[in-house]
Amino acid sequence: MTKVYFKDLKNHLEEEITLDGFVDKIRDLQYVQFMILRDGTEKVQVTIEKNEENSNLNEIVSALTLESTVKVSGHLLNSPNVKLNGMEMIPSKIEVTSKSESELPIDIKNKDKALRETRLDYRFLDLRREDNRLFFECETILEHALREYFIKNDFLEIHSPKIAKGAAESGAEVFKIDYFGEEACLSQSPQFYKQMAISAGFNKVFEIGPVFRAENSHTSYHATEINMADAEISYINSVEDVMDVEEDWLKYGIDALWNKYGDKIEKTFKVEKPNTKVDFPRITFKEAKEILKEKYHFEGEREDDLERHEEKLLCQYAKEKYKSDFIFITKFPFAARPFYHMLDEEGLTESYDLLFRGVEITTGAQREHRHDILKNQMKEKNIRPESLDFYLEFFAYGCPPHGGFGVGIARIMMQLFNIDNIREATFIYRGPTRLNP
Amino acid sequence: MTKVYFKDLKNHLEEEITLDGFVDKIRDLQYVQFMILRDGTEKVQVTIEKNEENSNLNEIVSALTLESTVKVSGHLLNSPNVKLNGMEMIPSKIEVTSKSESELPIDIKNKDKALRETRLDYRFLDLRREDNRLFFECETILEHALREYFIKNDFLEIHSPKIAKGAAESGAEVFKIDYFGEEACLSQSPQFYKQMAISAGFNKVFEIGPVFRAENSHTSYHATEINMADAEISYINSVEDVMDVEEDWLKYGIDALWNKYGDKIEKTFKVEKPNTKVDFPRITFKEAKEILKEKYHFEGEREDDLERHEEKLLCQYAKEKYKSDFIFITKFPFAARPFYHMLDEEGLTESYDLLFRGVEITTGAQREHRHDILKNQMKEKNIRPESLDFYLEFFAYGCPPHGGFGVGIARIMMQLFNIDNIREATFIYRGPTRLNP
Repeated sequence: MTKVYFKDLKNHLEEEITLDGFVDKIRDLQYVQFMILRDGTEKVQVTIEKNEENSNLNEIVSALTLESTVKVSGHLLNSPNVKLNGMEMIPSKIEVTSKSESELPIDIKNKDKALRETRLDYRFLDLRREDNRLFFECETILEHALREYFIKNDFLEIHSPKIAKGAAESGAEVFKIDYFGEEACLSQSPQFYKQMAISAGFNKVFEIGPVFRAENSHTSYHATEINMADAEISYINSVEDVMDVEEDWLKYGIDALWNKYGDKIEKTFKVEKPNTKVDFPRITFKEAKEILKEKYHFEGEREDDLERHEEKLLCQYAKEKYKSDFIFITKFPFAARPFYHMLDEEGLTESYDLLFRGVEITTGAQREHRHDILKNQMKEKNIRPESLDFYLEFFAYGCPPHGGFGVGIARIMMQLFNIDNIREATFIYRGPTRLNP
Repeated sequence: MTKVYFKDLKNHLEEEITLDGFVDKIRDLQYVQFMILRDGTEKVQVTIEKNEENSNLNEIVSALTLESTVKVSGHLLNSPNVKLNGMEMIPSKIEVTSKSESELPIDIKNKDKALRETRLDYRFLDLRREDNRLFFECETILEHALREYFIKNDFLEIHSPKIAKGAAESGAEVFKIDYFGEEACLSQSPQFYKQMAISAGFNKVFEIGPVFRAENSHTSYHATEINMADAEISYINSVEDVMDVEEDWLKYGIDALWNKYGDKIEKTFKVEKPNTKVDFPRITFKEAKEILKEKYHFEGEREDDLERHEEKLLCQYAKEKYKSDFIFITKFPFAARPFYHMLDEEGLTESYDLLFRGVEITTGAQREHRHDILKNQMKEKNIRPESLDFYLEFFAYGCPPHGGFGVGIARIMMQLFNIDNIREATFIYRGPTRLNP
C-alpha cells in the first residue's frame, strides 16, 4: 500500500509523492488553478499554474467534476502562506481514477438542503459529510472498546443463529422465512442462545450482532434491524452483579471514546462527555414512581411500566441529585417483563432498565435458571412449555445462576451525540417503508 | 462479582472462600466423600469426611447428581498430596444452585459415544466438553485479534443490512422474507455495502457478521448461516495490495492466537502452528494448472476453476517448495467470477483465492469501480443493469479504486484445528435439515 493519508502529509514535506482522494473543491482562476483534495482524514491543496508546460494538467482540471477521484503525483511544497495546513502539491501528473456526474442529487456539504428521506436514498453521498464520517469513526472506536472490555474480562464471544425455529420471545412480531419448506423466523434477540452458552458452561459470554424486529413502527427510535450488544454472566449472586458489569463496561467504552475523539466530538456535535466518575444511582421502580409523583407531580398512564416522559424526568432527577447521566431503575413488575426473569419474594422481577439522558437504552436481569420454576412462569404468561421445549431443556441438566443485559449500539450513540433519529445513527437504516439502498 | 475462577485458586490457599461450579465427579466412599467441581477454567476437589458434624453435607452430596451446579463455602486447604493441584476445599456449607437430571442424553466426556447428530441436538451439553470449550476460547481470541488488526490500521467497522431488497449477488440461492408485504431476502454477502462504504469515502472498512446461503448442500463445509469476516480497501494500486493486507492480517491473528493458547492447542488438537514467517507464495491460475499437470499429472474437470483435489495438491506444492501453509492463486478466468471483478488486459480477473492446508478459505479481488465498464460487465454476465440500479449508482459520483476479501471464520478455525466438519466448528450450526436448537 502506497496510499499516504492526508493527515500524515506533514511528514512528507518537500518530497515527491502521490496523493489519492476525492476532488472536494476547484477554483479555476485566470492564471492558476486550485484543487482541494479530501480523503476523509484531512484536505490538501493542489496548485497548478496556468502555462504552456502545464497545459495538459490545466485541461484535465478544467474538465474535472467535483467528487471525482484523482491520483496526483508531484512535489509537496512547504508553503507557510497556504491557509490549508501550510502546504501545497505542485503536480507533475494528474490521473482521474473515477469521474463523477457533474450534478449531485444531494448537497454533501449541507445536511439541511435535502429532506432526510432523500438523503437516505443517497446514503452513500450523505455519509461523505464530515460529521457523518466522524460519527462512524466514533462508533468503530466505541464498539471496539466495548468488545475489548469483554475480552479483557475473559468473556467468550458467541455468534448465535439469526435463523430460528420459533419466535425468540413470545408475543412479539417476527419476520418469517421460508427455510427449505419449513417455517422459520429471524431472531429478535440472542437471549435464548446466550443462556444456552451459560448452560454449556461458558462462564461469561457476549455477542455484538444484528437482531430483527418486525414492528410496523415509524418512530424516531425504532428500526427493523438493530446492532445489539448482549452479555450474559454466570455465578452471579444477584442482579446487582449484572448492573456492576454493565456500569463498568459503559464507563470503559465512553472513556476510551473520549480519550481518542473527545475534542472532535465536543466541537462537531456540541455535546459533553457523560459523567463516568460517579456511581450510576440505582432506585427501585416503586421508588421511581414515588419520586415522579412527589417531586414532579406526574403520574404515568401505566402502573407496571415507565413511559417516555417518566424516563425523561427520572434522568433529570439523576442529573440533579447525583450528577449522573445514567440511572438504573430496578424491580419492575412481572407484568412488564418476559417469563424468564427471576422473581423476588414479593413477585417483582430481579430486573432493571438503564436510562441514559432521558431514554431507556438497556434492559437487564437475573434469569430464572431453575427448570421447574421457569416452566411455571411460562404458564403464568400463557406460553405452552412444549412450544419452547428446546429452551427449557437447557435447564434440565444443571445451569448456573446467571444474568445479563442487552443494548442497541445505535441507541448509545444517539444519546452520546444528541442525534434525534435512529435513521441518522445507522449505517443503513431498515424500517417498515425503507428497504433501500 | 465474588466468583473466584478455579484457575486462580492458588492465590486463595488457606482462606475461607466460596466455590461455584458444575459437579464433575463424585466418589462416595465409606468414610469420606470426594466431589470434583469444574468451572471451565480448572477443577478443584471438595473433601467431606463422613461424620455426625457433617451429616447435613453428607446427605446433600449423597443426593447430588453429576452436572448439577453448587455453591460451596469453606476452607481451601493447601494439601500437597491431593493429586488435583495440591489443594482441597473443606466445606462448611453446600448449596445446590441447580439440579441436573441423573441421566444425560449424551456423554460429555467422550465425543465418540454419541452420533454427531445427537450431539448437535444437545449442543449445550456437547459444548461442555473440554476440547469444545478450548475451541471457542480460541475462536474468541482469534476473532478479536483479527478485529484489532483492522482497528490498529484505521479501518472503520460497518454493519451492513442483513435484510436486502434483491439477491446480493446474481444467480445464487437466497432465503426469502416477507417484509411487510414486500419481497426481501437475507444477505449473502456484505459485498455491495462494503463497496458503498468505499464510495462514501470510508477509506478502509471491515465487518464480521452473519451471511446466509440457501444452498441445499449437505457437505462437511457448507452451512446456511456463516460468520464472515469482510474487508474492503480504497486507493489500492492493484490486487497485490489486497493480498498484502490479507496476508499480514492472518499472520497477526494466528500469531496472537498461538501466543496465548499455542501450547494448549498443540496438546489438545495435535496440530502445528501454520508458518507465519514466510511470504505466502502467489502464483497465477495458469501457472497453477501447469504445475498440476506437469508435477502432479492431474487435470481437473473445470478449465476455468479449481476443484478440491487441485486445491489439495497446490497446498502440498506450497508446503514442499515454500514451506508455506498458505498459497494465493491469482488471475482466475472471468467465467468463474462475478461481474464486479476488475479485468486485466487479457480479460482475466484481478482476483485471487487463498488456499490454506488444502482448502480455499477466501476470495479476494480488485473491484471494477468505473461506472460504464461495470455496467458492461453486468451485461456480459446477463444481468440487467436496471435490476441493480441502486448498486450501480454507488459508482456514478466518484468512487476510489478499491478491492477486498472475505473469509469465513469457521473455515479458518477448521483448518487451524484440523476439524473435519463445519458442524463442529460453529456454536450453533444451521443447515438444510438442521434448524435446532
